[in-house]
Amino acid sequence: MRAAVLAEPGTVEVTERSPPEPAPDEVVVDVGAVGICGSDLHYYEHGRIGDYVVESPLVLGHESAGVVTATGSEVTAHSVGDRVALEPGVPCRRCEHCRSGRYNLCAGVTFMATPPDDGAFVESIAWPADYAFTLPESVSLTEGALAEPVSVGVHACRRGDVGGGDDVLVTGAGPIGLLAADVASALGAGDITISEPVDRKRSIAEDRGVSRTVDPTAEAVPAAVGGAGDDGPDVAIEATGDPQALQDCIDSVRRGGTVVCVGLGAEANLSLDVVDLVDDELTLAGCFRYANTYPTALALLENGRVNAEELVDFEAPLTETGAALERALDPTLVKGMIRIDEAAP
Amino acid sequence: MRAAVLAEPGTVEVTERSPPEPAPDEVVVDVGAVGICGSDLHYYEHGRIGDYVVESPLVLGHESAGVVTATGSEVTAHSVGDRVALEPGVPCRRCEHCRSGRYNLCAGVTFMATPPDDGAFVESIAWPADYAFTLPESVSLTEGALAEPVSVGVHACRRGDVGGGDDVLVTGAGPIGLLAADVASALGAGDITISEPVDRKRSIAEDRGVSRTVDPTAEAVPAAVGGAGDDGPDVAIEATGDPQALQDCIDSVRRGGTVVCVGLGAEANLSLDVVDLVDDELTLAGCFRYANTYPTALALLENGRVNAEELVDFEAPLTETGAALERALDPTLVKGMIRIDEAAP
Amino acid sequence: MRAAVLAEPGTVEVTERSPPEPAPDEVVVDVGAVGICGSDLHYYEHGRIGDYVVESPLVLGHESAGVVTATGSEVTAHSVGDRVALEPGVPCRRCEHCRSGRYNLCAGVTFMATPPDDGAFVESIAWPADYAFTLPESVSLTEGALAEPVSVGVHACRRGDVGGGDDVLVTGAGPIGLLAADVASALGAGDITISEPVDRKRSIAEDRGVSRTVDPTAEAVPAAVGGAGDDGPDVAIEATGDPQALQDCIDSVRRGGTVVCVGLGAEANLSLDVVDLVDDELTLAGCFRYANTYPTALALLENGRVNAEELVDFEAPLTETGAALERALDPTLVKGMIRIDEAAP
Amino acid sequence: MRAAVLAEPGTVEVTERSPPEPAPDEVVVDVGAVGICGSDLHYYEHGRIGDYVVESPLVLGHESAGVVTATGSEVTAHSVGDRVALEPGVPCRRCEHCRSGRYNLCAGVTFMATPPDDGAFVESIAWPADYAFTLPESVSLTEGALAEPVSVGVHACRRGDVGGGDDVLVTGAGPIGLLAADVASALGAGDITISEPVDRKRSIAEDRGVSRTVDPTAEAVPAAVGGAGDDGPDVAIEATGDPQALQDCIDSVRRGGTVVCVGLGAEANLSLDVVDLVDDELTLAGCFRYANTYPTALALLENGRVNAEELVDFEAPLTETGAALERALDPTLVKGMIRIDEAAP
Repeated sequence: MRAAVLAEPGTVEVTERSPPEPAPDEVVVDVGAVGICGSDLHYYEHGRIGDYVVESPLVLGHESAGVVTATGSEVTAHSVGDRVALEPGVPCRRCEHCRSGRYNLCAGVTFMATPPDDGAFVESIAWPADYAFTLPESVSLTEGALAEPVSVGVHACRRGDVGGGDDVLVTGAGPIGLLAADVASALGAGDITISEPVDRKRSIAEDRGVSRTVDPTAEAVPAAVGGAGDDGPDVAIEATGDPQALQDCIDSVRRGGTVVCVGLGAEANLSLDVVDLVDDELTLAGCFRYANTYPTALALLENGRVNAEELVDFEAPLTETGAALERALDPTLVKGMIRIDEAAP
Repeated sequence: MRAAVLAEPGTVEVTERSPPEPAPDEVVVDVGAVGICGSDLHYYEHGRIGDYVVESPLVLGHESAGVVTATGSEVTAHSVGDRVALEPGVPCRRCEHCRSGRYNLCAGVTFMATPPDDGAFVESIAWPADYAFTLPESVSLTEGALAEPVSVGVHACRRGDVGGGDDVLVTGAGPIGLLAADVASALGAGDITISEPVDRKRSIAEDRGVSRTVDPTAEAVPAAVGGAGDDGPDVAIEATGDPQALQDCIDSVRRGGTVVCVGLGAEANLSLDVVDLVDDELTLAGCFRYANTYPTALALLENGRVNAEELVDFEAPLTETGAALERALDPTLVKGMIRIDEAAP
Repeated sequence: MRAAVLAEPGTVEVTERSPPEPAPDEVVVDVGAVGICGSDLHYYEHGRIGDYVVESPLVLGHESAGVVTATGSEVTAHSVGDRVALEPGVPCRRCEHCRSGRYNLCAGVTFMATPPDDGAFVESIAWPADYAFTLPESVSLTEGALAEPVSVGVHACRRGDVGGGDDVLVTGAGPIGLLAADVASALGAGDITISEPVDRKRSIAEDRGVSRTVDPTAEAVPAAVGGAGDDGPDVAIEATGDPQALQDCIDSVRRGGTVVCVGLGAEANLSLDVVDLVDDELTLAGCFRYANTYPTALALLENGRVNAEELVDFEAPLTETGAALERALDPTLVKGMIRIDEAAP
Repeated sequence: MRAAVLAEPGTVEVTERSPPEPAPDEVVVDVGAVGICGSDLHYYEHGRIGDYVVESPLVLGHESAGVVTATGSEVTAHSVGDRVALEPGVPCRRCEHCRSGRYNLCAGVTFMATPPDDGAFVESIAWPADYAFTLPESVSLTEGALAEPVSVGVHACRRGDVGGGDDVLVTGAGPIGLLAADVASALGAGDITISEPVDRKRSIAEDRGVSRTVDPTAEAVPAAVGGAGDDGPDVAIEATGDPQALQDCIDSVRRGGTVVCVGLGAEANLSLDVVDLVDDELTLAGCFRYANTYPTALALLENGRVNAEELVDFEAPLTETGAALERALDPTLVKGMIRIDEAAP
């Protein structure tokens, strides 16, 4: 089978690999669709993200869905032919975090496309059956693959405790920001504002039906959303990694509000005014990956409340993964997909 | 001004009363729309609900909205002309329940149409300004009035902790059941089933888009929804007061699930099998009125996720309140409204 | 090695078995102390508990602690010589309950001394390392074994959300009731009342420092604890399985209060008045075993806030397990222990 | 009656004022004991705290308890002679925060000793009856006064969701830090560490029984408490306002842990590394005053789990308030009290 391998920064090669065999608790999946994520692009460009360094050829891609082609001897919940989304992080199942329901914090996790673990830009992959989720009939493979960024949105909304009627600010209209806004809406949020400097992305946000978009390069975000006090949003979700966006979130939420930090950027240091945090009793909630989100993400995709398919700007076959990564660097694009199945372009 | 007064069981008289003056913290509201609730019907037929006995003429009606015509000297948040929904229970604001956010449990509450406190089947009413909620522009007076049963649905979903992707069973397709299902959907619930014996009400539920309806006189509800174990609904909301419906809820929810008890019926005693409760670690959550729900209810009505207007079977003017109550006794009807404004039929 | 085996109801035989070998993820533990639980007694007398039937010889005992004598090849957190408490239920680690932190609801659990799984009345046992918890230095093997019923108390308090200053009623002064009261106190509960008909057990409760004991055969429990309304306890923990005790809990808790159902008895059916549940917005919370409690239980034993050692009425060596079970049937006793180590009587 | 008035920074004058009359919902209290808080000292030295400026003579003191000498016409829960603690902030009771149980966020609050509202360094004060809490018999007036800083500790532990067995780091051994540690212990916390640079305060912390003290000028706090990863404390409570202490908290808590920010200092800006917050999914929770804490604080004082009395370094009569404030500026002292009753020194 073929795999698209990051040989060195900027160079992706399609190579032949042995097809995987399932362990007793695994399924083998013929991958159909894989989303290109910002982290893939970062590894592609820089060969590292923080302490994670690509030291040997690495398969990228961690937003994937496909069709089960074989099942291990102990697998009972899946059959050959099942369409599944693969949750890319498989935790140790034994540590205190795993046992208490926060397995995203497991130090022993294996996570696709994070050195040294390979990802999903391959024709076929073996994966633990309990981290393969059967797709509802109406959910496409593309949507199944994008259950991954939807999961980030679900987890962000949970970390922010977004509830019915809550007003929400999202900074950034990339895939995470747009899907987090969709999820917030699906959970009953009231007014939803997206702040985004790129014109095209603001247009997309507006077309998707958010209450309001703000160009933070042209307008003060806090003033645009009611301005702290008790008129600001209940929850802000920071999905850019930009320090100014995080500051906008802090300055915008109402007294007692919550700022969820999802985004990571080049410049990590924020100058935080502790008085704001204390006097307004704000909560800053870091948000790392997700846990127990796939069933929810798939339910929201199934009932149409979350729209992932329309985020896709372009598709490319596995053999053109390198070119697709290059194209996805365009900051005005939202989402590129690698299609490996017969539906591939 | 005129008021429709329950003189004795079965007899409503329209009488003239002095128009109200606002206390410093009150607004005066010209009532426009008032829903007829099951409790109104119970007082109308029987003159009492449990320990609450109608001992002198009583104005019924507690689901109301109207237009502000005067404001007390301390009122700053409302102006003459504002369209408002009136939350019918005003608590003492001072007890431990009031201070801790569960003011629905306040023993010192004044609640419309609960002896000895008059309700809203009147032309004009004075009400504390903080329990009058300005309607969003797109929300009609009828919807504003029905923010009350929507509030019951919001509180039921909160008591059941309904979250994104949760499967929900609702027993009863009266206004509470239908609106609770709407609210659950608006909060991201997955599969929603309504159990209801009346054909017309099941049809209405289906037209409103629930995933499935069940006729409990023809089919075992637990089997229809996956049958306890881990396939049953995460949450069940009992909105009939019928012991069998409650039993259906208990027998249906999955391990670890929650049954929210909203309905009160003639026969209050349930034979509860404690082994079910313990071995499946179920939660039975009583649900009494609501607190802090009006802003959420109005937000959900505003964004269209909750559809209250279509529940209305008929409207009648204040002068025909008695006939309207009589008509509303028909168990196949969902909701009658008294219209007092110029839009009245 | 020797094991005490329930051959048939009423007959325990000590037999020789092959010593266990550790699987890669297991430790082998020389058992030192095992508590006798009510469920052991029920199997001993009746050969079954509900649907769980003893069909072949079964080793009883599931409250155990001992010393590690061997470790599997993958075990890193334990060494030979470590003193450990064994959590008796090992879940599948893969189902939705396991992943979301409620592994006590896992349908695929292996639980000691529950047919067909053997328990801990043995000299040596192999057990998954992640369900073996190292004892703090000051915690004895007896206390380590009793971390099991302490865990029930921790889980009961969590299900009741017992918080600082909360008044608590516990029905039953058996080991679960007494330890639940200790845990509630350790979590900052205010007034703690225990209702118990057996004189000796009430005396024990008083000696342990609860605020008040009530003899439910002589006095109405609700009146004794403030009588529903807003003066009753915030939380009641039912630890007997007696329907009247559960009714006492329901009639005692304050408006908005929670009743945690832990006990299971011969007569499972409660006649529940739904009006109480709804009008007072009570919560009835079933409580099944526990999850994520051992670290907490051991911390509370270590700091002395929970006193388990003094509950022990008598100890017996493994060879006298049958006689010890017989003796433990005395309803005035709280806890018997099997001691297998050199400290055994 | 006499009042100690801050005439200008550094100058306190004892003046004669008219004795208060109770409004219908108020009690009049002869003040017995008032704690001196850091905010009193800040106003005394600088005449302002942030935007709160002392523009006319102000009575300081907001940690108070005394004896009821008169009751307004509507007061039923208090009688003359009752010993009460006064909660110093009385909210509007009408805004969304007040209704939802977070009245500490009410913008319309009246708070003792916060310009322009006078405080409790007076012989007699009129106060809303629902913010006067009857002292349990065993709780002294000094302890009643110190229910205020205990309340800060209770609220901090709630914001950090301190639970049974949780390890806790507290930075700062002033009254807030010491009492927060006591409250954490009373709520079942496991290991409790206090970081404090002043030798005398570390000694006090040790004498009070914390698990460990750290001198942050001599030792790296994170390393001393297990060092982030999964061995660090579950919760850290920052009670100094020092940026380095906050950084220590962030660097110490385990993955998924919570840092509660209580302290405010001269230098408000923290350079926050967002990567830490996100990758370790930390929560930073601002903590502003408290709500619904007095009953809990008094319960914890009553059962002796929180020890406030021993924090008192010195007492002074009302007539020597100025000298007492001057003395309390000594950073090695923990708590000074003004005694106004016959027990005054």
